[in-house]
Amino acid sequence: MHVATGPHGYSLPLSPSGLSAMVTPPPWHFSGDVIMVEYRVDPAVAAAFLPPGVEPGADPGAAAAVFAHWHWCSEPDRESADPARNQFNEFMILLGCTAEGRPMARCPYAWVDGAVPMARGWIQGMPKQFGTVHQTHPKAVGHAGPRLAEGGRFHGIASQYGRRIAEASVTLDGPAGDPPGLHTVPLVHTRHFPAWVPPEQPLSQLVVSVVADVEFGEIWAGAASLRFADDLEDDLAALAPTEVGRGFVFSYAETLCHGRALGSADVGQG
Amino acid sequence: MHVATGPHGYSLPLSPSGLSAMVTPPPWHFSGDVIMVEYRVDPAVAAAFLPPGVEPGADPGAAAAVFAHWHWCSEPDRESADPARNQFNEFMILLGCTAEGRPMARCPYAWVDGAVPMARGWIQGMPKQFGTVHQTHPKAVGHAGPRLAEGGRFHGIASQYGRRIAEASVTLDGPAGDPPGLHTVPLVHTRHFPAWVPPEQPLSQLVVSVVADVEFGEIWAGAASLRFADDLEDDLAALAPTEVGRGFVFSYAETLCHGRALGSADVGQG
Amino acid sequence: MHVATGPHGYSLPLSPSGLSAMVTPPPWHFSGDVIMVEYRVDPAVAAAFLPPGVEPGADPGAAAAVFAHWHWCSEPDRESADPARNQFNEFMILLGCTAEGRPMARCPYAWVDGAVPMARGWIQGMPKQFGTVHQTHPKAVGHAGPRLAEGGRFHGIASQYGRRIAEASVTLDGPAGDPPGLHTVPLVHTRHFPAWVPPEQPLSQLVVSVVADVEFGEIWAGAASLRFADDLEDDLAALAPTEVGRGFVFSYAETLCHGRALGSADVGQG
Amino acid sequence: MHVATGPHGYSLPLSPSGLSAMVTPPPWHFSGDVIMVEYRVDPAVAAAFLPPGVEPGADPGAAAAVFAHWHWCSEPDRESADPARNQFNEFMILLGCTAEGRPMARCPYAWVDGAVPMARGWIQGMPKQFGTVHQTHPKAVGHAGPRLAEGGRFHGIASQYGRRIAEASVTLDGPAGDPPGLHTVPLVHTRHFPAWVPPEQPLSQLVVSVVADVEFGEIWAGAASLRFADDLEDDLAALAPTEVGRGFVFSYAETLCHGRALGSADVGQG
Repeated sequence: MHVATGPHGYSLPLSPSGLSAMVTPPPWHFSGDVIMVEYRVDPAVAAAFLPPGVEPGADPGAAAAVFAHWHWCSEPDRESADPARNQFNEFMILLGCTAEGRPMARCPYAWVDGAVPMARGWIQGMPKQFGTVHQTHPKAVGHAGPRLAEGGRFHGIASQYGRRIAEASVTLDGPAGDPPGLHTVPLVHTRHFPAWVPPEQPLSQLVVSVVADVEFGEIWAGAASLRFADDLEDDLAALAPTEVGRGFVFSYAETLCHGRALGSADVGQG
Repeated sequence: MHVATGPHGYSLPLSPSGLSAMVTPPPWHFSGDVIMVEYRVDPAVAAAFLPPGVEPGADPGAAAAVFAHWHWCSEPDRESADPARNQFNEFMILLGCTAEGRPMARCPYAWVDGAVPMARGWIQGMPKQFGTVHQTHPKAVGHAGPRLAEGGRFHGIASQYGRRIAEASVTLDGPAGDPPGLHTVPLVHTRHFPAWVPPEQPLSQLVVSVVADVEFGEIWAGAASLRFADDLEDDLAALAPTEVGRGFVFSYAETLCHGRALGSADVGQG
Repeated sequence: MHVATGPHGYSLPLSPSGLSAMVTPPPWHFSGDVIMVEYRVDPAVAAAFLPPGVEPGADPGAAAAVFAHWHWCSEPDRESADPARNQFNEFMILLGCTAEGRPMARCPYAWVDGAVPMARGWIQGMPKQFGTVHQTHPKAVGHAGPRLAEGGRFHGIASQYGRRIAEASVTLDGPAGDPPGLHTVPLVHTRHFPAWVPPEQPLSQLVVSVVADVEFGEIWAGAASLRFADDLEDDLAALAPTEVGRGFVFSYAETLCHGRALGSADVGQG
Repeated sequence: MHVATGPHGYSLPLSPSGLSAMVTPPPWHFSGDVIMVEYRVDPAVAAAFLPPGVEPGADPGAAAAVFAHWHWCSEPDRESADPARNQFNEFMILLGCTAEGRPMARCPYAWVDGAVPMARGWIQGMPKQFGTVHQTHPKAVGHAGPRLAEGGRFHGIASQYGRRIAEASVTLDGPAGDPPGLHTVPLVHTRHFPAWVPPEQPLSQLVVSVVADVEFGEIWAGAASLRFADDLEDDLAALAPTEVGRGFVFSYAETLCHGRALGSADVGQG
C-alpha cells in the first residue's frame, strides 16, 4: 500500500497531488515531420564521442543531421488541446555505432525549442539543449511551400544564443526505397545527472531507448546540402561534414516507453 | 527617367542599393494551413467596426475566427531558403460586410508572430499586432497528431503579452462542399498611417486587396468551439461569440498583388 | 589519477574535451535585482508542500513571491561577455519552514526564462519551469521608470504558455531596516531525477543549498499587491494569497557553492 | 467639429472607442540605459546613406553603435503597470551629418525586440527592424555584474533571424566630461510608407524629431571594441568600423513629442 508522504510527482515540481510535475511520466507519443541529411565525419572524431561499451559501427564516420517538427502527448492526453505545449522543433546529430553486437545510433548533440522536451531529453539521456530550430513544411497548395514530391525543396536551420549552428537542404528527386539507416536503429544514451553534495559522483547510466509503434510515412529522397557555422565550439565543430550524402523527407512516429540498461534485457513496466 | 538620389527601397530601412528594405515589394505569395470557425456577434457591435462606405452584410453578425500557419515568399524568392524568415502564424477575426454592392469581409483584429508580416499588414491595411499563435498541424502517422480525416481534432490558440486572447477547436466529421464564405470574398481594409508633423492628418485610405492564384486544398468541416478570454479590452471583448457555428480545416494559397481604392477599378501594376 | 575514458563533462552534452556541457560546474555567482512581496497562505496548504523532515515554521503560512533579474557567471567566467547567456528573469514562491531545528525556506514553484538556469535548478533541487517573467527596473532619469526611492512603483509579472500566472507590485515608502526574512534563511530542496529503467526508483535527495558571499544592496520597502491568475492548476492555485503583506525592492548577490544533505555537516569541496 | 464616423484610433487597429490602437499617440516618454561606442566608417559609404538635403558632417565618417534598454510610457500612462509591455532593447547605428546648417545624426539601421517600438519607429521615420538585443546591466552587488565604476565591463550584442549582427564592449576607465556627440544632436529621419494602390507613390517625408525633457545620468567612458558579423548583407556590412573609438555607459531620458519637416519651424501641437 502506498502512503503519500509529502509532495510527489514524476518530476519537479513536486506537489500534494503530484499533478504539478513539469514532465509527465512515459509513455510519450511523438508524431513528426523529419528532414534528414546523411553525412560523414572523421571516424576518429566520431569514436571520441562514444563511451566505453559502445564501438564504432561497420561504417565508421557515418553520421546524420536531423531536423524534426514534433507533436507529442502523454497518457492520459492532456497536451493535444494546447498547441502551445504539444509541439516542438528539434535538430540533432546522429553517429553510427555498435553496441550489444548490433548497429545503434549515438546522439552527441541535440537542440529543441521547448523546455519540457529538453527536460525529457535529460531524463532519457539525450543531450538536448535549447535552441531555435526552423524547417520547411510541405504545403498542399500555392507558390510559397514545397510539395512532398519531385522538385520539392526543404530547408532546416538551427541557432543558439543568436548564432547559427547549422543549415541543411534537400531537393527531392523521388521516393526512397527504405528509411535512412540511422533512423531505424536503437539509440544508446548516457543518462547523466550531476552530483551536488560533495564528494558524491554524478549519476551516469548507459541506456538503450525502448520504443513502440514505430511508423514511417511516405519517404522521399534527394540531393542534399549541409553546412556547420564557422564559429562553433571545438568539439561540435569537429563533427562538421567531410562529405555530404543523400537527404530524406518523411513523416515518422514512435512511442517512447522507457529505457533499459545497455547489455540487459528489457524488463518492461510490469 | 528615374535618377537614384540617395538611399531608397520599398520600405525602411532605405539604403544605397535598396536591398536593405525590411519588406519586399509585392506580389507576395502565401501557402497556408487554416483552422477557421464561423460564429456570430451582435450585429450592432459588428456595424460599429465598419467604416463609412462599408455596410453590414446580408447576414448581419456573421463572423469568423481564423488561425493559419503560413509560408510566404516574394519575387525573386530570397525567403524560402531561410525557414526562420518565410513562416508565420496568424490569428484574425473576420466580419461579413457589403461594399461596392457585393459581399466582402472586414478584419477588425489580427495577430501574427513575425515582424515582417506585421509591417506588411500595415502597408495593406490589415491591423496586425504581435502575438503568439499556435495551431494543431495534421500529422500523417502516429498517436500525437490528427489526420485530415473524420475524427481529426484541431486546436488554435492566441496570446499577447503573456495573456490568452482566444481558443478554438474543430473536430472533423466530413468533407465540406464549399469553402467557408468569409474566406472567399474580398477584404476591405483601411490603410492608416499616423501623422507625425502637426497639424498634418493621418494617411487614411479605404482599399480592397487584389489577389491572384487563389487555391483551396481539400476542405474538411466539423463541430467547433470558440472562446474569448475574460479580461480582454472592451472593443475586442465585444466581438466575442454569441453563437458558434461550424469549423473548417483546409489548405489555402493566394498571391497578394496590391490594393485598389474602394469604388475604383483596379488599374493594376502596368 | 583520473584517466579520461570517453566523452565527459559536468552535464550533458558529454564531449571529448568536456567543454560542451550545457551547465558549468559550480560555484555559480549571481547578482540580481529583486522585487519581493510577503504574503500568507493557508498553513495547511503550505504544510502539504513540505517533505518529511521539513516542518512548518514558527509562523505557519508565511510565504513570499519573488521576482528577480539575474546576471550570473561561472569560474572561469566565460559568460559575462555574452549578455544573451549571462542573464535570466525568475519568479518563485517561497514558504517558511523549519528543518535542522532552524528557520529555512522551501520553494514549491519557480519559473525562469532561460534553459541553463532551468537545468541548473533541477541539479540543485529547485523546481524551475520555463516561463516569461518581466519586472520593472529602477531607472536613474526620466519619466518612464521609477527611482529606488520613495514613491517608486515596481511591478512583476509571470506567464507560462501564453497565460498569466501572477502579478505583483510594490510602491516604495522608505528604506527597510532589515531584509525580508524568507530571503535570509537557507533553502531546503528535494533533488529529484526521474528513473528511466524499470523497476528503478527516482533519485530523491533532501538537500540544503550552501551559499557564500551573500550581499544585499540598499533595501526599500512599501505597500504591495499580489494576485494569482484565476485559471491555475489546483496545487498552485492553493498557494494564492489569503493576505498580502509588505513589498521589498533590493539588489542581492550570492555565490551558490554546492549542496549538503539535510541533517549533515557540509563537507565542502575539499 | 469632428463627428466620429466609424472606427478610429491613433493607429491600427481602429475600433469604436479608439482604444484598440496598437500605438498610443505621442508624447512618448523614454528612460534608458545606454552602451555606446564611437567609431568611424568610410566617409563615402556614410554619404551614400544620406538623403538629398542632408550632407556629411564636419567630421565625415563619424559613427556610433548604440545599445539601449528602455522603459517607456504614454500619457495617460497605461504601460508602466505591465512590464511585458513597457520595455524593449534596441541596437542602432548613427552617422554624423549636417542639415539646416547644423550637426545632426542619421540612423541608417536599428533593431528592437518589441513590435510596438518597431511600429513607433516607422511612424517617426526610424528604420527599426525586429531583432534580439541584449546588454550588460550595471549591478549593485556581487561578482556577476559590473558596477558603473572604473573597471566595469559592459557588453552589447544584436542578432536577427538567429544570426549575429554586431557585438560591442566597453571597459570603463573614468567619468566622461561630456556626453558622446552623436547622442546630443537632433535625429533627421525619412518617414517612408510604401504605396499600395498603383500608380500611387510612397509617402516620403524628411523630418526632424522634436524631443523634450532630455536628461543624462552619470556618464562613464572607457576603451571599446566593436565587431560586425562577417555575413551581413552588403549595405549594412559597408558600415562596419574602419576604426573604433571610445565607449560610453550612461542613463538617458527624453520625451519624444512629434516631428517637424526638415527646414521648417516647429509648429508644435497647439
